[in-house]
Amino acid sequence: MIPTHIEHLGIAVNNLDEAINYYEDVLGLKCYSIEEVQDQKVRTAFFKVGETKIELLESTTPDGPIGKFIEKRGQGIHHIAFAVNDINTSLKTVKEKGVRLIDEEPRPGAESLDIAFLHPKSTFGVLTEFCSKKAN
Amino acid sequence: MIPTHIEHLGIAVNNLDEAINYYEDVLGLKCYSIEEVQDQKVRTAFFKVGETKIELLESTTPDGPIGKFIEKRGQGIHHIAFAVNDINTSLKTVKEKGVRLIDEEPRPGAESLDIAFLHPKSTFGVLTEFCSKKAN
Repeated sequence: MIPTHIEHLGIAVNNLDEAINYYEDVLGLKCYSIEEVQDQKVRTAFFKVGETKIELLESTTPDGPIGKFIEKRGQGIHHIAFAVNDINTSLKTVKEKGVRLIDEEPRPGAESLDIAFLHPKSTFGVLTEFCSKKAN
Repeated sequence: MIPTHIEHLGIAVNNLDEAINYYEDVLGLKCYSIEEVQDQKVRTAFFKVGETKIELLESTTPDGPIGKFIEKRGQGIHHIAFAVNDINTSLKTVKEKGVRLIDEEPRPGAESLDIAFLHPKSTFGVLTEFCSKKAN
């Protein structure tokens, strides 16, 4: 179940428009998509750098997961998402090895991917996401 | 000065050996190098996932930058390093655009790269590193 690459990095920001401006104007990346994920109470902006995406996350409500993260820790890197070929097998494998899962089953994420989170208490403090293309 | 890819992610951990075990045994990645960077007061372990490296960082002293980071925020993602073709030009460009630099000039990092950090107050909370191969 070796991850193929880092699919994206999630970065929590207070103000999506200001952060987009930094990633575009200063770093020279191009925002190719802005999407609201109601389930996660976020507005997201996507950039591509090499094979990895940067996903900026602005909370649409203070009591959402990103709002709470920023209140506690400030803006910054929120999670790493690894691309895996088979998310169901990957979840089963890591659970058998003692990892605590936030999502026991995959659920729909941004960009039409199936996603699931592992608990940072099991992953040395790194909120870790698996994602894979939907099985058809 | 567009970054070509994410060269590595730095992750602060309390115990390098335990964290290596997680990345190898649970995630299936392979540690290919362990290196001490005395300048940064860290022991590092490297993994490759796609085109990006994961660099685990264990502090060799409580008063080093990683020791202080963990004391304040706990284990977790410490920085993002973007690969750039010309680190001197990249630093000059972002400084002209108002970014505060931690390193005004590149310095030697792990894996024989030239590196420099941008201050997270200028980069929406993300400690950001540029790195490039040494100019010969």
